[in-house]
Amino acid sequence: NFRASKDQQEDGELDATYDYDLVVIGGGSGGSAASKEAAFLGKKSRNDSHAFGWNTPDKVRHDWNKMVEKIQEHIKSLNSSYQEELRDKKVDYINAYASFLDPHTLKTVDKTNEERIITAQHIVITTGGILRYPSIPGAKEYCITSDDIFSLPHSPGKTLCVGASYIALECAGFLNGLGLEVEVMVRSILLRGFDQQMAERIGKNMKEKGVKFSRGFVPIKIEKVQDGSSVFRLGRTPTLKVTSKHQESGEIREDMYNTVLFAIGRDACTDEIAAEKAGIIPFSRFSRVIVDEAERTNVKNIFAIGDVLDGKLELTPVAIQAGIRLSRRLYGSQDSLMDYINVPTVIFTPIEYGSVGLSEEAAIERFGAADLEIYHKSFKPVEYTLPKKVENVGYAKLICIKSLNERVVGLHYFGPNAGEVTQGFALGLKLNASKADFDSLVGIHPTTAEVLTTLRFTKASGQDVSKGKC
Amino acid sequence: NFRASKDQQEDGELDATYDYDLVVIGGGSGGSAASKEAAFLGKKSRNDSHAFGWNTPDKVRHDWNKMVEKIQEHIKSLNSSYQEELRDKKVDYINAYASFLDPHTLKTVDKTNEERIITAQHIVITTGGILRYPSIPGAKEYCITSDDIFSLPHSPGKTLCVGASYIALECAGFLNGLGLEVEVMVRSILLRGFDQQMAERIGKNMKEKGVKFSRGFVPIKIEKVQDGSSVFRLGRTPTLKVTSKHQESGEIREDMYNTVLFAIGRDACTDEIAAEKAGIIPFSRFSRVIVDEAERTNVKNIFAIGDVLDGKLELTPVAIQAGIRLSRRLYGSQDSLMDYINVPTVIFTPIEYGSVGLSEEAAIERFGAADLEIYHKSFKPVEYTLPKKVENVGYAKLICIKSLNERVVGLHYFGPNAGEVTQGFALGLKLNASKADFDSLVGIHPTTAEVLTTLRFTKASGQDVSKGKC
Ligand SMILES: Cc1cc2nc3c(=O)[nH]c(=O)nc-3n(C[C@H](O)[C@H](O)[C@H](O)COP(=O)(O)OP(=O)(O)OC[C@H]3O[C@@H](n4cnc5c(N)ncnc54)[C@H](O)[C@@H]3O)c2cc1C
Ligand SMILES: Cc1cc2nc3c(=O)[nH]c(=O)nc-3n(C[C@H](O)[C@H](O)[C@H](O)COP(=O)(O)OP(=O)(O)OC[C@H]3O[C@@H](n4cnc5c(N)ncnc54)[C@H](O)[C@@H]3O)c2cc1C
Ligand SMILES: NC(=O)c1ccc[n+]([C@@H]2O[C@H](COP(=O)([O-])OP(=O)(O)OC[C@H]3O[C@@H](n4cnc5c(N)ncnc54)[C@H](OP(=O)(O)O)[C@@H]3O)[C@@H](O)[C@H]2O)c1
Ligand SMILES: NC(=O)c1ccc[n+]([C@@H]2O[C@H](COP(=O)([O-])OP(=O)(O)OC[C@H]3O[C@@H](n4cnc5c(N)ncnc54)[C@H](OP(=O)(O)O)[C@@H]3O)[C@@H](O)[C@H]2O)c1
Repeated sequence: NFRASKDQQEDGELDATYDYDLVVIGGGSGGSAASKEAAFLGKKSRNDSHAFGWNTPDKVRHDWNKMVEKIQEHIKSLNSSYQEELRDKKVDYINAYASFLDPHTLKTVDKTNEERIITAQHIVITTGGILRYPSIPGAKEYCITSDDIFSLPHSPGKTLCVGASYIALECAGFLNGLGLEVEVMVRSILLRGFDQQMAERIGKNMKEKGVKFSRGFVPIKIEKVQDGSSVFRLGRTPTLKVTSKHQESGEIREDMYNTVLFAIGRDACTDEIAAEKAGIIPFSRFSRVIVDEAERTNVKNIFAIGDVLDGKLELTPVAIQAGIRLSRRLYGSQDSLMDYINVPTVIFTPIEYGSVGLSEEAAIERFGAADLEIYHKSFKPVEYTLPKKVENVGYAKLICIKSLNERVVGLHYFGPNAGEVTQGFALGLKLNASKADFDSLVGIHPTTAEVLTTLRFTKASGQDVSKGKC
Repeated sequence: NFRASKDQQEDGELDATYDYDLVVIGGGSGGSAASKEAAFLGKKSRNDSHAFGWNTPDKVRHDWNKMVEKIQEHIKSLNSSYQEELRDKKVDYINAYASFLDPHTLKTVDKTNEERIITAQHIVITTGGILRYPSIPGAKEYCITSDDIFSLPHSPGKTLCVGASYIALECAGFLNGLGLEVEVMVRSILLRGFDQQMAERIGKNMKEKGVKFSRGFVPIKIEKVQDGSSVFRLGRTPTLKVTSKHQESGEIREDMYNTVLFAIGRDACTDEIAAEKAGIIPFSRFSRVIVDEAERTNVKNIFAIGDVLDGKLELTPVAIQAGIRLSRRLYGSQDSLMDYINVPTVIFTPIEYGSVGLSEEAAIERFGAADLEIYHKSFKPVEYTLPKKVENVGYAKLICIKSLNERVVGLHYFGPNAGEVTQGFALGLKLNASKADFDSLVGIHPTTAEVLTTLRFTKASGQDVSKGKC
């Protein structure tokens, strides 16, 4: 239990004594990140051992239950090591639901229904989000979200993923990788907010891998077909009939699946914290909390970080970094704000997509198309040269601002190990790297990342980069 | 055929007319880089599919000839695409050996023994290096270098790798990964010039994987044991008897191997270019060329780059980057010199090691131990969490200079995908990143690279980082 100094003086609240200096509502980033990690790991499951001379059999059977068992073990171990870490750090871990009584007072209710009242000088809301279901018949009864996928007692079979966010595409790619029949139902565009050229590359590649995309459709009804009449003959797996409607033409379709997974966004978990008792107003769409650039709500001792925020990136390290910055501002000597612009992020689709900085669309909006110089290249990932996989499936582009001495404001990379490749370059963008800095960086050979040191052609030149070599 | 402008004026040589503006002696970086690439690819051959639910058989047999065939195909395709690229670029490609007649004149001799005389204003020596054999009985007769390994008509069997450079360790790791019995004979230390803490980590990990290390020994004689009396019963594979001597104790050992591979450094290919006729003096040890910081020899129109240089890094992208810089200085508008300090480099051992900037030893020498703050952490690579491989085998450290606001002058990473991880961070180091810049960089989760954004413990604190989490 430590004491705040800086803020107390500002607030003139030196007299008040609270049980805690700081209370954080929300255990944070554990569950979904863990299942995400596991999904990510699960995907890294096969490679082209044939080309390297290993005599692996041509047909390898995948065992769903074995994988789920391993993943559950892993999640358990993550959770317990996380609690241990907190104990190490002199933090009281209260396993209970919290809601506000006033700006400094919380009521907690634990599993046994026991209530407790605690007070704190500062309170941080980090209650996260919950995956959303649409309000259509049968959705909640028969369908799942990504939270459920790794506890399914059977293989999901033929699966429909509804939504076009990174969660929908990652789930579809993962299940397709296991050899299942997968369809993605896309209401409008792929990956709203992301660079659209890159989003379409992901779509194209997944289509080539056998994922079906239904564009413009939205499900309007889900029904369970009589058990036993399963058209897919998959033991215990149910059969679901999905009625969907095209957004423009009004066309109605009926299709059968074993599993329907919704990935249509998340709602913030703020309905049950009685924020109004603390005077926090107003909440935005999807119950999200509005804060200023220092993550402060309209109530000066109450802050919020992570997925509960409106209009911010919903990512584990964003929540972590914002938490670190906030603690340092409250109790440390540093004043720096969280930088929500140069956040690197990766979509773990079959071919991964990493980016940091602005999308091409956002750069045009901010600087105007005439001020952009975009360097790009197609390449053959180093991992793929021997197994003779698809030619030049990789693609990289740097978005530079002419009037700022070709400062790089956006980096986009479509290829293997996108996370490992993008992480370090994000440091370069934070430090205002220019295209000349990228050019004078010596490559590491042989890697895929070195392609970013060799971009010579501009989009404006119209030169064909599809035959580029790595 | 293009004309030099800048340099002509400086040199007052406007009147001279040469066949070419620029002649480069040496086809550059093709062969060995290609075989390197292939070796690298070959290593990426197996993973822990079991843990992810795939029913792969427990014993998988490796087929040496199948692998060699694939690699040779790949090298051929690289070579031909390289020649095509040159044709595209209006470069005369003369497939012949060159030697000097005077500072501006070369004699070339092709395969059919046809001679040609060509003149050029500028000449660049990029004749590379050749792997060295020791002058001991039997070395050249019975032993191989890394150049030969992918054309061996049979599996190398039990192999001795002599040397402790990255080539020796990479070869040993690769062969061990294929399931062969491998020994490394180390004269003094592992990886001279590299951070020694990291070098010892590589050694320890390879030892755990079953590679044997003989420290202090040097081979003094190699003999071929009678064919047919093979102690290893490996069909066509010969048996070699290696006599070796301990450098300090003088102890003599005799051991049997199927293959002995020397990786004890390279000599520059300069003996046959008649450099003295151009007035180039003096050559250094191992026939290497001495140049100034602009890669110019003592003869003002003659330059040298790549492996022929003395005391520079022998790496493909170093030769490439130096070549680009040199061309731009001669014919473009840029004056910038090649930066040989912030060159990222990776050792592709079973667990890879990536680094950029200074080793701990070099940083101590340059800044003094008292001015260093070293942040470090052990971690469990994200790929290894599910398959339950060795705990926290990964390790990362940042070497910072206290008096320079914790500027990061050395980055060391031991873990998977070291090349992809290190490449981008090298840009950060070039841009003078400080530890605070690393700290405010948002991670990408889940990746292994994100560990570099979370280093909190210093070596000076003595805290145990072996239980760190990723
Ligand atoms: C399928 C999926 C994949 C994802 N993949 C990635 C990825 O690859 N990389 C990445 O960086 N991010 C990923 N994310 C996002 C990441 O999981 C979130 O951004 C992150 O978990 C946000 O952290 P948080 O602390 O804000 O919220 P959460 O991690 O959701 O934590 C909120 C916690 O608060 C608790 N809580 C709620 N209400 C109360 C209350 N009243 N009292 C007490 N406790 C309460 C909840 O039970 C929960 O434990 C993914 C998310 C999903 C769903
Ligand atoms: C086993 C091994 C592994 C390696 N691994 C890596 C790695 O992972 N990453 C990396 O970056 N680097 C690696 N290298 C180093 C890399 O291959 C060299 O640094 C690079 O090839 C140097 O390029 P260069 O142009 O200086 O010389 P080279 O590539 O050797 O080219 C020199 C060329 O000149 C020709 N030549 C010689 N004399 C004459 C003459 N008189 N006339 C005309 N032509 C002549 C030669 O035939 C040759 O084609 C490795 C090297 C080896 C041996
Ligand atoms: N790194 C980045 O650049 C980036 C990019 C995107 C988002 N984000 C952040 O991530 C957060 C979440 O983004 P998000 O709101 O787009 O959520 P999301 O979960 O990322 O995406 C929701 C997806 O589901 C679709 N969808 C929503 N309702 C649907 C319905 N009823 N039926 C069918 N499909 C439906 C949406 O399609 P539509 O497109 O048609 O709405 C969209 O594809 C945002 O706060 C944002 O800041 C960041
Ligand atoms: N990135 C870096 O920081 C870095 C690191 C190392 C080298 N380099 C560069 O790479 C170039 C080549 O390095 P290098 O000269 O060390 O060559 P090398 O090929 O990298 O290493 C030669 C290795 O063989 C050993 N060896 C040499 N002769 C031997 C013999 N007769 N018997 C047994 N072992 C023998 C050496 O051991 P000993 O150690 O006992 O001599 C050393 O381990 C150098 O120009 C250097 O600049 C860069």
